[in-house]
Amino acid sequence: MISEFRLTRRVQFHETDAAGIVHFSCFFRYMEEAEHGLWRAAGLSIAPPDARVGFPRVAASFEFRRPLRFEDEFEVLLRVTKKSARSLSYRATVTRDGDLAARGTLTVACVAKQPGQPLRSTPIPPDIAGRFAVAPDAEDDG
Amino acid sequence: MISEFRLTRRVQFHETDAAGIVHFSCFFRYMEEAEHGLWRAAGLSIAPPDARVGFPRVAASFEFRRPLRFEDEFEVLLRVTKKSARSLSYRATVTRDGDLAARGTLTVACVAKQPGQPLRSTPIPPDIAGRFAVAPDAEDDG
Amino acid sequence: MISEFRLTRRVQFHETDAAGIVHFSCFFRYMEEAEHGLWRAAGLSIAPPDARVGFPRVAASFEFRRPLRFEDEFEVLLRVTKKSARSLSYRATVTRDGDLAARGTLTVACVAKQPGQPLRSTPIPPDIAGRFAVAPDAEDDG
Amino acid sequence: MISEFRLTRRVQFHETDAAGIVHFSCFFRYMEEAEHGLWRAAGLSIAPPDARVGFPRVAASFEFRRPLRFEDEFEVLLRVTKKSARSLSYRATVTRDGDLAARGTLTVACVAKQPGQPLRSTPIPPDIAGRFAVAPDAEDDG
Repeated sequence: MISEFRLTRRVQFHETDAAGIVHFSCFFRYMEEAEHGLWRAAGLSIAPPDARVGFPRVAASFEFRRPLRFEDEFEVLLRVTKKSARSLSYRATVTRDGDLAARGTLTVACVAKQPGQPLRSTPIPPDIAGRFAVAPDAEDDG
Repeated sequence: MISEFRLTRRVQFHETDAAGIVHFSCFFRYMEEAEHGLWRAAGLSIAPPDARVGFPRVAASFEFRRPLRFEDEFEVLLRVTKKSARSLSYRATVTRDGDLAARGTLTVACVAKQPGQPLRSTPIPPDIAGRFAVAPDAEDDG
Repeated sequence: MISEFRLTRRVQFHETDAAGIVHFSCFFRYMEEAEHGLWRAAGLSIAPPDARVGFPRVAASFEFRRPLRFEDEFEVLLRVTKKSARSLSYRATVTRDGDLAARGTLTVACVAKQPGQPLRSTPIPPDIAGRFAVAPDAEDDG
Repeated sequence: MISEFRLTRRVQFHETDAAGIVHFSCFFRYMEEAEHGLWRAAGLSIAPPDARVGFPRVAASFEFRRPLRFEDEFEVLLRVTKKSARSLSYRATVTRDGDLAARGTLTVACVAKQPGQPLRSTPIPPDIAGRFAVAPDAEDDG
């Protein structure tokens, strides 16, 4: 079982905006990149070609403390903070040289994939749920 | 004084993802597009060429209820929910055909713009602050 | 039959980069937005939910003359420049206040949509091909 | 002197579109990411904080052969194909498992950076130009 993942990443030019800093929407992409890295580290893909379930995002948030700029190297530490029958929650901490840049949260729900149908909530299959555990210190992290 | 803005928009193909729906990070861009429309409706630009202050985002969140798909027409209703000496907060409601798709919040802070310097909090200039008012029903909207 | 489309658009903040101008990759998105507008003006969607064919891009180019900046209003004039059994080509001219900002080209091919299969070239269905005509002055436009 | 750079990269979910493949505009971003990697490998940044010159894109193109999908690992081989007093040109070859996915070209020009002024062409400073050489086999590569 896995409960956290560290992504190291460099800011790309197309992620910056005219204020000279990373556009805030990109932090949500960074958090998701770390989530998908967590799933791969668990031996899974969150969206395999033949998937019967999907994991749409139901809530996401970020608080921003320090901007990131072009070519900055930064780290995203993603931790599983909650696991229920039909959803997973994560917390992301973005740092550069040890300084906090931003903190985020993400909750995803499991849905049955039926082309052309509305998304329908369904329990996370056991072979997926069994791979993830809530991080022991997820609470202290808040 | 202005306290809300309605943006009507169509989903572009490059905003969709392999799940066949709008990528969640795009909702944050939609919310910001509505914010900048609010500022223009107030006779302002949030980032004029010669700006002495800037408005970096300090917090943003979204809850997602129904997905948007390619070519869907949707509306973003953005309301000012809080105004303090150094920050503004908004709430965004995204609907399609009257159905709620997502609700978001955004808080931005006023900073002095000094090239090459760290961002430094500063009061919102009166000629900007005087243009915005908290929406009367912002509370009921919660 | 339709052979051209004019899209009027404003630069959004998330489309700018740290050089203070629209990131060059966004022009390709603007060109595609105009293409999809052309298809809607022809009474079609390029990607309807139940599509049996798709139109992946096989070639795209742009030459950039003048940058666009935040909140600039600009126009994309898209013209059909070539129509063959299995592909369509367009030219895009991006202007701001009548001044040329950039010129682009785009070629898309028709493929059969089979989930999980490689893309396979197929003739454009007559009910689609019959809606588009090469613009009369497409050559002078070069 | 340096004349080529290899970037290895994985497709991120936010780079895919509703056709289930990487959106074509992202290839232009991949090519630019490789360019900036080339500059770093040359001991340079293409956009340092105190830059007196900038390198806006003047032309870019891609031909697409095979799509990339979520989590595909791919390589971008970027080669310098032309070096003149005021511009640099590159060719990019994108492959996955040795199969050609796409080929692109990019030309950038050197401009003097003057805040608030129009971009003005200027010779590439010698300490930058001296770091790059045209790849020996750039022609065969065509």
